[in-house]
Parts: sequence; structure tokens; C-alpha cells
Amino acid sequence: MDGDAKRAADVAAIRACVETWLEGCRRRDAERIMSVCAPDLATFECHSVFRLDSAAAYRRFLEACFPYMQGDMEAEIEDVDVAVDGDLGVCRYVGRFTARDTEGQTHVSWLRATMVFRRTGGKWLAVHAHLSAPFDPMTEKVMLNRESAFGSDAPAA
Amino acid sequence: MDGDAKRAADVAAIRACVETWLEGCRRRDAERIMSVCAPDLATFECHSVFRLDSAAAYRRFLEACFPYMQGDMEAEIEDVDVAVDGDLGVCRYVGRFTARDTEGQTHVSWLRATMVFRRTGGKWLAVHAHLSAPFDPMTEKVMLNRESAFGSDAPAA
Repeated sequence: MDGDAKRAADVAAIRACVETWLEGCRRRDAERIMSVCAPDLATFECHSVFRLDSAAAYRRFLEACFPYMQGDMEAEIEDVDVAVDGDLGVCRYVGRFTARDTEGQTHVSWLRATMVFRRTGGKWLAVHAHLSAPFDPMTEKVMLNRESAFGSDAPAA
Repeated sequence: MDGDAKRAADVAAIRACVETWLEGCRRRDAERIMSVCAPDLATFECHSVFRLDSAAAYRRFLEACFPYMQGDMEAEIEDVDVAVDGDLGVCRYVGRFTARDTEGQTHVSWLRATMVFRRTGGKWLAVHAHLSAPFDPMTEKVMLNRESAFGSDAPAA
């Protein structure tokens, strides 16, 4: 493969890891999520914890969160950008996550994600995941509605 | 330079970009921050906006924020991790930002940061910056105190 073809294959492989991660989120399947995580994964979660320092801690976090939902979650992403060089890859995107709580109420959360991947032994795995929503500095409330979080720099509709 | 020396030099160069960015934050100096940003920088800010899609938009955002503070800001970071391969670099860290508002009140914010760098024409520049704090899912309030955001996975003191 020439450079461009190799790069395109790496981008596709990283994109597939992100899709596996999203599938795991949709089905609340920690095992599936773990299949694309390196043991030394460090995450900055969007809620509850400041930093998790291993895939094992991330798994405990997921397994503590999933019982607060029922049924499948919806997880759709856009503005996906993948950068890759050698054995290092980065994927950033914005995502719309829709979950139903145990009382049947639906919650929609727009989140921003930055995921870092490393290729080890020919396999791409996530070594870092950063998910977040911005907050309103006046109220200190999280802004989970993407539209509410655009000021004068909102892109044209 | 052999591979290890080259990598060490790249890590140091990326670390220096982060230090310049922090210096710019401390002095509320948008020009200094811009000196390490690529024109196509995309940022996920910790507050107010969901996504900014250029260095120009980021500069407008900074210039809109700075008048809410007075004097220098403190910005200290720890748990710094830099990964680099070829012309792509990633730096993640946690930081403690202390600012004084226009009424003289001091605000301390612990934030998580993931910054992505690309080397173009021999110079490393930020192409992506993601800063955030987690939120409490019960109250939907941002958690700017690092200690409040650790659950059972809190590292030993």
C-alpha cells in the first residue's frame, strides 16, 4: 500500500473502533466497549468523576451507570474528524445520546468527544477518551442542548 | 538523532507549546495563545459554547471572556501525558485555574484538557483543544472541585 492508502486504512480502522464503542454504548454492553480499550486507558468522563486511570476503572464506572437506564440508548455522531500518523490516532466528534431512565423518561445529551488510539501488535485500541458538555458560567449548569451552547459563533443553520 | 532522541525532542516541543498556551492564559494574552494555534483549530470549550471551528473564533471567544477577570490568572497543571508519532502529537493533563473576577472574588476551577498538535513546516501547532469539567447527573451542576468529582475510584491521597 502507498502512503495514502495506508492512511485511509488506518482512518477506517480507527473509525471502526469508534463504531464498536458506540455499539457498546447503545446496547449498554461493557464487554463490547472494553474490546477497543487498552488496559492503561485514561478517561475524562462527562459526568460524576474527574478522571479514571485504567480500563478496569472505566468498566466499573460503566457498570455503575448502566442500571440507571432501560432499553437501548441512541448514539449518533457527526462532525467526525480522524487524524493519524504512524501508530497514533485521534478521533473527535460531537454526539447525540438519547437514553431512557428507569422511570421511562427520555434524556437527550449532546456531548463532545476526543478519543486517542494507539496501535499495538497491529491492533488499534483507545488509550484516552474525553467526553464532555460545556457549562453555563452564570448558573454553573451543564448545557446538554447543543443549540443552547452556541453564542455568536453558532454555525449557520 | 536516533528514534528515542527524536521522540524526546518532539515531546519537549509539544510540552513547550502547552506552556506557551498556559502563559497566554495566565496573562490573558490572546496573541500569545494564538502563537501556538493552527488556523483550522477546533475547540471544545469548558463553558458557554459547544464547539468553535477556527482559531479566529477561539480568539473572539477568549477576548469576550478576559474582561470578566482581573489581574493574572493562575494555571498549574499535573498528570501531563504526551504521545507523539510522526507529525501528530497529543497532550493530556489536569489543571487548576484560579481567576479573580471584576468584583475581586477568587474562583478555582479544576479542568481536564486534551490538546492535539500537528507539525507543519517544522513547527508544532494546536489543531484541537478540549477542556472540560464533569457534571453531577443528579443536580446537572458542573463539578469544578476535583475532589467532589471522585467517587470510589479516587486515587489514594
